[in-house]
Amino acid sequence: MRTQDEILKLINISLDQVNLEKKPARLYEPIRYVLSMGGKRIRPVLCLMACELYDDHIEKAIQPALALEVFHNFTLLHDDIMDKAEKRRNMDCVHIKWNENVAILSGDTMQILSYQILSQLPEKCLKEGLALFSKTAVEVCEGQQYDMDFETQEKVDIEDYMKMIRLKTAVLLAASLKMGALIGGASKEDAEVLYQFGIEIGFAFQLKDDLLDVYGDALTFGKNIGGDILCNKKTFLLIHALEQADQTTLDKLHFWLNKTNFIPEEKIKAITDIYDQLKIKDLCHSEIEKHQKLAFSLLNKIAMPDSRKASLSELANELMDRKK
Amino acid sequence: MRTQDEILKLINISLDQVNLEKKPARLYEPIRYVLSMGGKRIRPVLCLMACELYDDHIEKAIQPALALEVFHNFTLLHDDIMDKAEKRRNMDCVHIKWNENVAILSGDTMQILSYQILSQLPEKCLKEGLALFSKTAVEVCEGQQYDMDFETQEKVDIEDYMKMIRLKTAVLLAASLKMGALIGGASKEDAEVLYQFGIEIGFAFQLKDDLLDVYGDALTFGKNIGGDILCNKKTFLLIHALEQADQTTLDKLHFWLNKTNFIPEEKIKAITDIYDQLKIKDLCHSEIEKHQKLAFSLLNKIAMPDSRKASLSELANELMDRKK
Repeated sequence: MRTQDEILKLINISLDQVNLEKKPARLYEPIRYVLSMGGKRIRPVLCLMACELYDDHIEKAIQPALALEVFHNFTLLHDDIMDKAEKRRNMDCVHIKWNENVAILSGDTMQILSYQILSQLPEKCLKEGLALFSKTAVEVCEGQQYDMDFETQEKVDIEDYMKMIRLKTAVLLAASLKMGALIGGASKEDAEVLYQFGIEIGFAFQLKDDLLDVYGDALTFGKNIGGDILCNKKTFLLIHALEQADQTTLDKLHFWLNKTNFIPEEKIKAITDIYDQLKIKDLCHSEIEKHQKLAFSLLNKIAMPDSRKASLSELANELMDRKK
Repeated sequence: MRTQDEILKLINISLDQVNLEKKPARLYEPIRYVLSMGGKRIRPVLCLMACELYDDHIEKAIQPALALEVFHNFTLLHDDIMDKAEKRRNMDCVHIKWNENVAILSGDTMQILSYQILSQLPEKCLKEGLALFSKTAVEVCEGQQYDMDFETQEKVDIEDYMKMIRLKTAVLLAASLKMGALIGGASKEDAEVLYQFGIEIGFAFQLKDDLLDVYGDALTFGKNIGGDILCNKKTFLLIHALEQADQTTLDKLHFWLNKTNFIPEEKIKAITDIYDQLKIKDLCHSEIEKHQKLAFSLLNKIAMPDSRKASLSELANELMDRKK
């Protein structure tokens, strides 16, 4: 079995071999730029690991794995336009470095590119792999739309929220695992279990993200703390706080949510104090734990020796228990 | 053989059956809106006609034909954002009726949708059809990027221009024909000849568009006359005028191109006068005629009875000789 580092290396080498030295320059430069920003390549790694559970010859899963990574990076590119983000991994976003039109069109091209690469799926799973990919891709867009809808929606309940993060984050992780499993020759049942395993990882991963935004260490997390608080983002924490606060606390919360002129640090502190008072951190922790447990009970269902599942298990732990 | 109207009806019925009654509403409403704007459905019609050249059972080409139409409409949607257009077929563009984010994301979803529909290609030509579709889709994006590059590029020569319209307009018409031919069971040679036939139609179609923008009848054309002139668009006409004008005329041309404050009618008249003086209309006409002749000589190469080729020939004539 290959280590996570070996797999990551394989992915990065293969990604470098995708021919993007093409014209027009203003279409392909941004694509090279985005794909060279690095990152943990979680989706292709999951895909290759799932494939390796069933088959040591993971080469045939490399192109589909890259397709998942290219698609993911396309969503980041377009999401950054929609969110008016300026930085991504400490670098200027494409729509900042170039302009919005360039960002739209190079993103469109990346999406096509992801299908072009995906089409190198082994013949026997081409149809199923394509269907999985397209279904997932549509869901990711649906998730992004819900996320944008929530910004202006007065009330978002926790069920809506979990549905949104399932679509926006979890299904692509799940599909990456299932894609690898299919290519590796897993049974339909195993492929489905690995899909669900990915969903649980996705939930835990996103909830951890919500938590770290408030309780993380700025240096380790690599983002400013309190970003979600400053823009009133309806996260797991805020939704629960709104649901559980008594009238006095609720008034205080609404005071800060409606205030347009504030000192950032003060707002972050005030809302964090409310979260502390309501023990939202513990609540979020136990929700994460629930999904972690579910994830591992699913992985246990896969009738393979633990040694074969070790790297997948380790990566899942890293993702769900990350500090950054 | 089915008439053009019968084929169009078949396409519209099938398009109505694509399930778009899904949530979130702000993602799917714009897609339904765009697809219900109508239009001539040229690409799917070409696809079905090419299929019918070889096989009376054109049902199997319907989904791939729809994929081409959905993809085409996706490009219009995103191009309208990039071009800051306000109207499309006399209706508000999606980014006007909703907003830019909705337009970006529903466009992204349409692109995935086009692949989802395309994946219903008959198994035997799935791989080839996918490759053709993706290659073409990337080229269309390249064409759009060149078109945007030309806006700020000082000098565009006619070769650059023809390359741009080949990518932006012609290849999708060509691919529609080739896709239909492949599904119908055409030989590789015939599929290639039909592709080239589509390229020539595309050239003639776009050049006619350039011509109609200046010399068309506003009522019949359905757009305001002189739109390209007002925004200094580097069309076949302007590029040739810039190449052929003597110094005095060139100075006059540059005067109008650089003028930022002008009465629209005056600018349109001044530039049209220059085109008249340089006989650019005749030049454009003879270029169109060249491509029309090439198109029909290609169609003649297809060893099928004229009766089988009649509807395709008729449609090609309509497209290249249109008044609107």
